[in-house]
Amino acid sequence: MNIGLDMMGGDYAPLEAIKGLQLYFNTPNPQPTTNNVQLHLFGSPDALNPLIEEYALPADRIKVVPTSQVIAMEEHPTKALKEKSDSSIAVGFGHLAHGKIDAFISAGNTGAMMVGSLFSIKAIEGILRPTIGAYMPRENGKLGWLLDAGINADCKPENLEQFALLGSIFAEQVLGYEHPKVGLINIGEEEGKGNLLAQAAYPLLKQNKQFNFIGNIEGRDVFLDKADVMVCEGFTGNVILKLAESIHGLVQRRNVHDEFFDMFEFEQYGGVPVLGVNKPVIIGHGISHAKAFMNMIRIAEKMIEKDVIGKIKQSLLPTA
Amino acid sequence: MNIGLDMMGGDYAPLEAIKGLQLYFNTPNPQPTTNNVQLHLFGSPDALNPLIEEYALPADRIKVVPTSQVIAMEEHPTKALKEKSDSSIAVGFGHLAHGKIDAFISAGNTGAMMVGSLFSIKAIEGILRPTIGAYMPRENGKLGWLLDAGINADCKPENLEQFALLGSIFAEQVLGYEHPKVGLINIGEEEGKGNLLAQAAYPLLKQNKQFNFIGNIEGRDVFLDKADVMVCEGFTGNVILKLAESIHGLVQRRNVHDEFFDMFEFEQYGGVPVLGVNKPVIIGHGISHAKAFMNMIRIAEKMIEKDVIGKIKQSLLPTA
Repeated sequence: MNIGLDMMGGDYAPLEAIKGLQLYFNTPNPQPTTNNVQLHLFGSPDALNPLIEEYALPADRIKVVPTSQVIAMEEHPTKALKEKSDSSIAVGFGHLAHGKIDAFISAGNTGAMMVGSLFSIKAIEGILRPTIGAYMPRENGKLGWLLDAGINADCKPENLEQFALLGSIFAEQVLGYEHPKVGLINIGEEEGKGNLLAQAAYPLLKQNKQFNFIGNIEGRDVFLDKADVMVCEGFTGNVILKLAESIHGLVQRRNVHDEFFDMFEFEQYGGVPVLGVNKPVIIGHGISHAKAFMNMIRIAEKMIEKDVIGKIKQSLLPTA
Repeated sequence: MNIGLDMMGGDYAPLEAIKGLQLYFNTPNPQPTTNNVQLHLFGSPDALNPLIEEYALPADRIKVVPTSQVIAMEEHPTKALKEKSDSSIAVGFGHLAHGKIDAFISAGNTGAMMVGSLFSIKAIEGILRPTIGAYMPRENGKLGWLLDAGINADCKPENLEQFALLGSIFAEQVLGYEHPKVGLINIGEEEGKGNLLAQAAYPLLKQNKQFNFIGNIEGRDVFLDKADVMVCEGFTGNVILKLAESIHGLVQRRNVHDEFFDMFEFEQYGGVPVLGVNKPVIIGHGISHAKAFMNMIRIAEKMIEKDVIGKIKQSLLPTA
């Protein structure tokens, strides 16, 4: 198993990525089957080699892939990918497309990661719109999975149906929920409620037997365990995500100490996968620290081990 | 000044409405100019008179308007209003339309209150869609005003522009903010970001000089003091409102005690006005208790005293 890591992406690159690798190698693996993972580190050897030595990363588990350019956080994605062909993100996607690595991770420019995903490894045939989700803290202590989290601001009903399918597979395979409960985010409980999109999406979700649709959920249900997978277009999803992210700061500034409210520290979750493209791609937050990098590698491992991409492809085949 | 109160609406009618009146009469008035308010109580005399005596409501300040029917919370609004012409809501709107009262308040069937508003006193000429807003707790301790909160799930850009105008007038006149900051809820900070609706609404809000548009705000800004008035369509607004409402229960169950998080107890705010109709109409939550009823009367007083309706009408006149 070969996992690629952009060492130059994120606000604290490459140091936090190095620390994340150290943490990864020093932490007992909850999935021992993935103990043989080889990490491919994309970045400047001059920047990386001294740190690899300093942090004593195991030489037999890592391989530096030298790159000479970096796509900065604020650069225009398409332009940057075109002009910086020797950037860590561009080279990483090249390796992913050619099968030299099985997954690619970056905490760098999100737009460049999306564009790279769509242009180099492409959407899975039949997927109308790849999507990015977000973890949601829930009162039961288990994370929910909200999608779309902001990539697809305007959606058609069919997009929401596919988000439900993609989210359900991810929640089952990676988050470990059996028959995850899929809810449609809406402004009323009964079928027929909502805006035109939600009204049209409901029957599509209801008739699809590939996931466990439980009906509409409302804003008040997001932090409860009503649904494991919460589906909406990316406008509402992004507002919910950023609102939820803001709660951690509020809780800290109000000096509230509580296990549940600690879950709102989103940095701990690492990155999120681009769902609906042909290989596992994980995008991390720009402010990712060591723990986030470790968690992103774990998510990539799990996506490869559980063959999430294969299961998504299978779910799209016409049923007999 | 004559204010009408539906005594039969809400889950705890008529007792909590009676208690709310007692609280109202026993609480020093922050706006002494409204000390001469006459309350018109719509409901069953058999139910009301013994309570009026028991709670010693001042006879010279109240007047029972006998009604024989009640529209229940779950009834179909249009059907109920048509069939129950002697219900407290139907009679109340009749009095409002004929000028016998200057404002009408109910914690009853929200749909019936909306339909009653639109059919009996009607939208102000030029208003495309009347709207209902919601108070939003903010870290600075001052309430924000979010609209639309769920009445208009699908909107056009022009609707959002009017919500901004209506919200700004309400925030200035009733909430007391000078030149309230108006933000467009969106999924990015810069102009051009967002879904098609937000992209199209931005230039309309920007060019309108009748309110103080500060640009886009994001989910993370809702509980901060970035904007006093937060504008969006009713789908996103309703999801935000219900999510915010759910925080109080979470805080209570986690045993968190904090002044800011106490603001999430929405019941204390009383009701919200239907903005954009020809007279002040206040709709309360079904679970309204005494304090909420008192606060609804105060909001009605302020809307009458500040001539909010007149100011809205004036703002819609073509400028020279």
